[in-house]
Amino acid sequence: MRIELLTTGTELLLGTTQNTHGAWLGQELFKLGLRLQRQVTVPDGPAVVAAMADAVEVADVLIVTGGLGPTSDDLTRESIAEVFGIELVEDEHALRTLVEFFEKRGKVMADTNRKQAMVPVGADVLSNANGTAPGLYLPPRLSGGKNCAVFLMPGPPSELYPMVRGEVFPRLEALSGLDELPAMREMCFVGVGESDFHQSVDARLEAIEGLEVGYCARLGEVDLRLVGDEAAIDQGREIALEEFAEFLVSEDGATLEAAVVRLLAKQGKTMATAESCTGGLIANRVTDVPGSSGVFRYGYVTYANEAKRDLLGVSWEDLEKVGAVSETVARQMAEGALRNAEADVAVAVTGIAGPDGGSEEKPVGTVFLAVAVKGGETKVEKQFHPRSRVSFKRAVSQAALDLVRRALGNVV
Amino acid sequence: MRIELLTTGTELLLGTTQNTHGAWLGQELFKLGLRLQRQVTVPDGPAVVAAMADAVEVADVLIVTGGLGPTSDDLTRESIAEVFGIELVEDEHALRTLVEFFEKRGKVMADTNRKQAMVPVGADVLSNANGTAPGLYLPPRLSGGKNCAVFLMPGPPSELYPMVRGEVFPRLEALSGLDELPAMREMCFVGVGESDFHQSVDARLEAIEGLEVGYCARLGEVDLRLVGDEAAIDQGREIALEEFAEFLVSEDGATLEAAVVRLLAKQGKTMATAESCTGGLIANRVTDVPGSSGVFRYGYVTYANEAKRDLLGVSWEDLEKVGAVSETVARQMAEGALRNAEADVAVAVTGIAGPDGGSEEKPVGTVFLAVAVKGGETKVEKQFHPRSRVSFKRAVSQAALDLVRRALGNVV
Repeated sequence: MRIELLTTGTELLLGTTQNTHGAWLGQELFKLGLRLQRQVTVPDGPAVVAAMADAVEVADVLIVTGGLGPTSDDLTRESIAEVFGIELVEDEHALRTLVEFFEKRGKVMADTNRKQAMVPVGADVLSNANGTAPGLYLPPRLSGGKNCAVFLMPGPPSELYPMVRGEVFPRLEALSGLDELPAMREMCFVGVGESDFHQSVDARLEAIEGLEVGYCARLGEVDLRLVGDEAAIDQGREIALEEFAEFLVSEDGATLEAAVVRLLAKQGKTMATAESCTGGLIANRVTDVPGSSGVFRYGYVTYANEAKRDLLGVSWEDLEKVGAVSETVARQMAEGALRNAEADVAVAVTGIAGPDGGSEEKPVGTVFLAVAVKGGETKVEKQFHPRSRVSFKRAVSQAALDLVRRALGNVV
Repeated sequence: MRIELLTTGTELLLGTTQNTHGAWLGQELFKLGLRLQRQVTVPDGPAVVAAMADAVEVADVLIVTGGLGPTSDDLTRESIAEVFGIELVEDEHALRTLVEFFEKRGKVMADTNRKQAMVPVGADVLSNANGTAPGLYLPPRLSGGKNCAVFLMPGPPSELYPMVRGEVFPRLEALSGLDELPAMREMCFVGVGESDFHQSVDARLEAIEGLEVGYCARLGEVDLRLVGDEAAIDQGREIALEEFAEFLVSEDGATLEAAVVRLLAKQGKTMATAESCTGGLIANRVTDVPGSSGVFRYGYVTYANEAKRDLLGVSWEDLEKVGAVSETVARQMAEGALRNAEADVAVAVTGIAGPDGGSEEKPVGTVFLAVAVKGGETKVEKQFHPRSRVSFKRAVSQAALDLVRRALGNVV
C-alpha cells in the first residue's frame, strides 16, 4: 500500500514553521507495519491542486495536512473537490458541531467559520475534539477511478495527532487488509546514544530474519523499535538487553517521565523537584503524565540565590563562598526539597544554561545534579552539556529524571 | 525562478531523523528575495530517479540533498546521470581532494570512498571543507533541454549549510539576475484566532496591491506575515492594528514569553509564578528566554493543597471549603507568590488538566487564573480549555503569560 503525505502551508516553505508532520507520521506508520513513501510540501494556493492531482495518480492513500481553516488561503477542501470533480455541500452535522465548539467556550461562531462545514459529496466528516476544523475522509470510490483514498487533516499537531490515531489508522488497517498488525516492541533507552547501538548490536539485530529494526534518537534517549514476528522480536530484545539492560526505561512506549511516575506510584512514594537552570522543565515533564498528582506534590523553581535560601534552606554563606553552581549547593537543594516537601525522593539541578554567565572554571553547559532519598545517601553528579539554552535544559531534565529512576531501583 | 528542494533519505520518511533542510533553505532563500516552491522527500533507492525526473520538468533550479556518501544506498550521482542521460567519470581533482581529506586526519581512504569522486561529464565539483562528499553543480545546458540547473548537496547540516552559502547562492544570484529583496513583517497576536482575522481584516488585506498575506495559527496565537513593498506592508499593518492592537505581542518574531521578559526588563520589574495545573510550564517558558534570570527569581509549583498552604499561604479553610480550583484560591496563590517572592507581578493558575478529576460543576478544562501586581488590584479570570492534558497546560500557560503582559501595560 503506497502512502503519501502532502503538507500544505506557505509558512513551511518560508521556513517560519518547522515541518514535523512527516517524521511523526513516518514513525506512527512504522508501528502499523506501514511505510510513508513520499512527502511533498507546497505553499497554500493553486499548487495544492497540482500536488494532489500528481499524488492520487500513484498513491493508494494520500494524507493531506493543513488548509482546513476558515481563511481565504485555506483551500484544501476546494482543491480535492476540483481534482476529483465533486461538489462541496454544507454538512448539517459538521455545522452543528462547529457551532457547539464555540458555544462551549462561550463564544459566537464567526460567519467565516461556516466554510469549515463544507464537505465534498460522499466524504466522511471526522470530528475534531481539539479545534474547529473537522477532518474529511474521501474513500477510494470518490477518486474518479484513481482508487486512492484521501484524508484531509488539520495542521496543528494538537489536532492532527489525535485525529490520525483515532480516525485515520483504523481506516488504513481496513484498507490495507491487515488482519493483524505485525508485532512491535518499542524499547526506550536513556543514557546511551544511537552510535552505541551501531557499534555493538546493530549488525546482530540486522542479521535476524523476519525482524525490522528502527532507531529513533532523541536528546539523551534512543528508542529501539523491533517489528516482525514474536520470535524474532524476542531474539532482538535479548541482544539489546545483553548490552544495555541498565539503560532500559520502558518497553511499552512510555516516556522517561511516565516511567518515573509509574515507579513512584508502584512504590507508594512521592518526589519533589528543586530546579535552578531547568527553570521548571523537570516539574513540567512530570506533570505531563496523567495521575502525576498522586506522586508529585511540591516543585521549587529557585532561579535566584535568595529563592534557594528561602525555599530550600541553602546556606547563604555557601552560596557566596562556592557559588550557586556547585556540588555543595546542589546537595543542599536536594536535601532541602526532600525535607520541606516531606517527599521520598528529591532531585535538584543547578547549572549554567547560557548564553551568558559562563566562566573559565564553569563554562556554559556546566551543571550539578543531586538526588536525595529519604533515609538514604544523597548522590551528586557533575555533567557538561555545551548546547543551546533550550537543548541544555532538555538534556539536564533528562539526566535528572534518569537519576530519580536509578534512585528508585532502576526497575522497569 | 522556480526553485525546488528534493531531500533524499529513508530515515526522513521513517521519522528517525527530523527533516530540517526545507525550513532552513526556505529562510535562506527568502533573504535573497527567492522562494522555495516545493519540497519533496523520497527514500534512498529508485524513487530518487522518478522524483528528479518529475522536478526537472517544472523547476528552473533543483537542489538535491543526501545520497552522496560512499555506501550502496547513496545513488544521487547515478540518478541525475540517468535522468539527463550523461556519463559518470572519475574526476582526478575530486579524487585527490578525497585522499587528502583522509590523510589530513591521519587515515587511509577506504576503497568504497572512490565512488565519491565520480562526476557527471560537464558538472562542476564543489569542494566540501567539512566532509568527504563533494557537491556537484550541473548547469542548465546539461539538462537535456529542460533548462533546469541542478545542485547535488551533502545531507549533514554541517556540510550542507556552508556549501549552499558558498557555492549555491552565488550561482543562484547569477542565474536569477536578482533585483531587490522584498520586505517582510511578522506580527504575533495572542488572544485572537485566525478566524477573527478572516472575519474582520482579511478581505481588506488581500485587496492591497503588492502585498502577500500569510497566517500561521498556533495554540492561542496567530502570526500574521506581510510580505511585499514597504508601503503595502505599512498599509496592511495599519489595518491589522486598527482591529487587534491590544492583542499584538511582538513585531519582530519574539515569542510571548520573550515579549514578557523584555517588558519586565524594560520596566525594571520581576515576576513570580504560582502553578498548580500547569505544573511548571509557565516558569519553564519564561526561563527558555536568555536573560530571564534578571526578571524571574521564584517559581512555585504547588501541585498539592499542602504546598499551596506552605509555600503561598493559601488558607486551609478556604481550600477545604471552596476547593483548590476556585477564584478564592487563585487569588490567594497570586498574592502569596507576590508577597513571598517580593516580586512586582505574580501569576497563578489552578485548574483541572484531566483526564481525571473533573466534576459536573468543575469539568476537566476548568481553570482559574490570577495576576497580582505590587500596589495594584488582583485580577482573577475563569477560563475553560477542554483539551488533552498537554494542550490544556499549553493553552493555560499562554493565557497566564498574556495576563502578565496585559498587567504590564500591553506595550509592544
